[in-house]
Amino acid sequence: MSAIHQNVSTSLSASTSTFLSHNNLNSLRPSHVSVAGRMSAVVICVATPSAEKTGASLLSLSNHFSILTVGATFDEAYKTNVARNENLAKLQAGYLFPEIARRRNAHIAKNPDAKVISLGIGDTTEPIPEVITSAMSKRSEVLSTVSGYSGYGAEQGEQKLRAAIASTYYAGLGIEENDIFVSDGAKSDISRLQVLFGSNVTMAVQDPSYPAYVDSSVILGQTGLFQKDVEKYANIEYMRCTPENGFFPDLSTVGRTDIIFFCSPNNPTGSAASRDQLTKLVQFAKENGSIIVYDSAYAMYVSDDSPRSIFEIPGAKEVALEVSSFSKYAGFTGVRLGWTAIPKELHYSDGFPVAKDFNRIVCTCFNGASNIAQAGGLACVSPEGIKAMHEVVGFYKENTAIIVDTFNSLGFKVYGGKNAPYVWVHFPGRSSWDVFSEILEKTHVVTTPGSGFGPGGEGFVRVSAFGHRENVLEACRRFKELYK
Amino acid sequence: MSAIHQNVSTSLSASTSTFLSHNNLNSLRPSHVSVAGRMSAVVICVATPSAEKTGASLLSLSNHFSILTVGATFDEAYKTNVARNENLAKLQAGYLFPEIARRRNAHIAKNPDAKVISLGIGDTTEPIPEVITSAMSKRSEVLSTVSGYSGYGAEQGEQKLRAAIASTYYAGLGIEENDIFVSDGAKSDISRLQVLFGSNVTMAVQDPSYPAYVDSSVILGQTGLFQKDVEKYANIEYMRCTPENGFFPDLSTVGRTDIIFFCSPNNPTGSAASRDQLTKLVQFAKENGSIIVYDSAYAMYVSDDSPRSIFEIPGAKEVALEVSSFSKYAGFTGVRLGWTAIPKELHYSDGFPVAKDFNRIVCTCFNGASNIAQAGGLACVSPEGIKAMHEVVGFYKENTAIIVDTFNSLGFKVYGGKNAPYVWVHFPGRSSWDVFSEILEKTHVVTTPGSGFGPGGEGFVRVSAFGHRENVLEACRRFKELYK
Repeated sequence: MSAIHQNVSTSLSASTSTFLSHNNLNSLRPSHVSVAGRMSAVVICVATPSAEKTGASLLSLSNHFSILTVGATFDEAYKTNVARNENLAKLQAGYLFPEIARRRNAHIAKNPDAKVISLGIGDTTEPIPEVITSAMSKRSEVLSTVSGYSGYGAEQGEQKLRAAIASTYYAGLGIEENDIFVSDGAKSDISRLQVLFGSNVTMAVQDPSYPAYVDSSVILGQTGLFQKDVEKYANIEYMRCTPENGFFPDLSTVGRTDIIFFCSPNNPTGSAASRDQLTKLVQFAKENGSIIVYDSAYAMYVSDDSPRSIFEIPGAKEVALEVSSFSKYAGFTGVRLGWTAIPKELHYSDGFPVAKDFNRIVCTCFNGASNIAQAGGLACVSPEGIKAMHEVVGFYKENTAIIVDTFNSLGFKVYGGKNAPYVWVHFPGRSSWDVFSEILEKTHVVTTPGSGFGPGGEGFVRVSAFGHRENVLEACRRFKELYK
Repeated sequence: MSAIHQNVSTSLSASTSTFLSHNNLNSLRPSHVSVAGRMSAVVICVATPSAEKTGASLLSLSNHFSILTVGATFDEAYKTNVARNENLAKLQAGYLFPEIARRRNAHIAKNPDAKVISLGIGDTTEPIPEVITSAMSKRSEVLSTVSGYSGYGAEQGEQKLRAAIASTYYAGLGIEENDIFVSDGAKSDISRLQVLFGSNVTMAVQDPSYPAYVDSSVILGQTGLFQKDVEKYANIEYMRCTPENGFFPDLSTVGRTDIIFFCSPNNPTGSAASRDQLTKLVQFAKENGSIIVYDSAYAMYVSDDSPRSIFEIPGAKEVALEVSSFSKYAGFTGVRLGWTAIPKELHYSDGFPVAKDFNRIVCTCFNGASNIAQAGGLACVSPEGIKAMHEVVGFYKENTAIIVDTFNSLGFKVYGGKNAPYVWVHFPGRSSWDVFSEILEKTHVVTTPGSGFGPGGEGFVRVSAFGHRENVLEACRRFKELYK
């Protein structure tokens, strides 16, 4: 402690002169301001689709900032003269998942004996098929042998895996192995795509939608400030998706943007866009010269003839790229493996291929996915692996059916489910948060309030099908008890 | 083909109107321009410290763009109306490693029977110690069990690993587990740090230095254009490191910047800054209110009493963060695992903690390192793992000594080596590229021309100690033959 104390005091003399020489008065700010800043951190600093993760993050942060509080006992903490990135300051405090974790933890504290079931998050719960884990285990072992060791791989991914992904998911669609960039997951690639496009593009998102699209756009400086009255960031085009429009936006009301983020099957509504709807979307992008960033992370959950890939739509390769992942197919949420497909036909306004710049981003800002995870990915797209992934997906789809039937039997209007592991339940005229609290308090089941995915989600609750069967059945039993 | 042709023609009419309505004449550009753009891609689009990787990338790209050439047979390819990110356009064509790979491949083509030895790149060659691979193998296996399965982990890394890294590398330095952010490698974190700081900061780098610092800064828009006359980007402060100044910059000639990238032990010079020198650096940062991004990826190679961490310097926690990696300790270049340590004491000018914003970046733009790689990391910092890593590092240090002795015996001035796996050989008055070519043509050994790391590297060649012992001995035998 005394050592720190010494450092702080030494630094203070230095900093004071420094700051005065820079006419910077921040160092004169009372420390309670930064302390307040710290407190808010516990709310703002976690952006994650996982309440568990958020729980962990909150825990680590409360430790982190309780330690910080010690530092705050000094009157003045040293401050550098580097200005905080103003885009990060735009991010909203009341982020969805930390708030859910907070309420969940408070509920557990209040009801220590309650068996809390979480159907709130998109985290997989079932084991990874053995055909896949054994491939990763073997790859790990051979890394300790001279013949089996390998160092840096290609940043774009191992050629065999790129080829297997192309032939498995894009056969006959004109996407070849060199159009596939293997990643450590869709969330990481969404952010690398924002770095690719830069700060000067405009973007559109479905409302409601997965929060990472908007947050990464804010961080890159593509947006204006958050408008509290409409709960939207300025300079983002929110494409409203409701039961009235079949969860597909009325494109005649959507302004032109450079980038259009579109997730189908959609998180959170669980709706998959039809072939006709995606044809309209591609035409809309062509008329505007926009680029569609298509998120197909749930494509294997499609049960009807809705497209599994945007590239099933003629002409899509000239206006779209596709982000996908093994997370929800093989339970790879922790293993981390995904990919982005960028067609050769996709060009910027000056004719420069988008894939070429993304390749430079991948090579400069990334060093390839873990070779062990890539061995798992290769097993995923082997005949046995594909069969095993379909069994995993099938299990979660059975969960989905159980949840859909439950809410239907209770007279609720239920959306999604058929083509996605998410059930989107309508509570007309009610606040998502009120319903979330009612369900948590009376059934000890954690769901997700729809308004957390954007203003368009108000009045809905998302129920996730990722859970052990007995938990899903028990949760549904409790729902029936509550809403009978 | 006809289908594509049809799409192109439909799209053209659409695009033409779009482009005209945007007064954008790009669509009228002759297609050979974009074809030329494509050709240059083979040179510019790969940024990687690995010639092997570059080779793979070049291969994939040549495939990629040979396919593109087919598309170019149409008079007009559809172009979106999204402007290319101007920062990516600033990146230079003549990037070091693709050029090395090109010359290496050309040499192999010309000398098919030559046994080419690569000491050009920083890629590890020795197997990963079994104590570490078995931990990863076990973690892979249990993921197929109900009790052993885990999904999303905390984005900051598993708490046990964060704690073990803190106690192993920062014991007594005031860095606690919650200051550690586990990553998929230093290169990825360098880019996430650039996203953290944003486009409005200024930065300084050692000249010569690892190219990813400068390239990621260019991509984020922190720099001006490349100045061909001085071979520097505008708005970057290049801190010259030469034998004359002991490879430590004369700070009295360095202008104030927000961020200072500093790598020690240094890649490529192999020099480690002394305690006195780092104390001067920290004092310089304090006087300027700058933030030091300290890259300690080679710290375990330090043989003398040079600091292994910037946090050994009193007061450093208020002006520095540290990026590090298991890549060069445990052979994790392909497994992908590293970390960034951000002290609680590091604040922006408004008093906001840097760690809090980086936590938000990690949570929004990343989803944690692979849980299997993290199991390996935990084994790395176990007592057996640390012993095993020291043996790996010791092996490469023996290689280094062999290379240093060789060039010393030939009368060259040799730098580095003692505290790093890189030997920095001086060829006064000669061009780095000429020496590179002479060595490649006459000994079939690939090195790295110093000028590729920045103008300050001209006249030097970097020889890497990452190689099998027999290859290092054979390479040295050939050096003696050439320069006897």
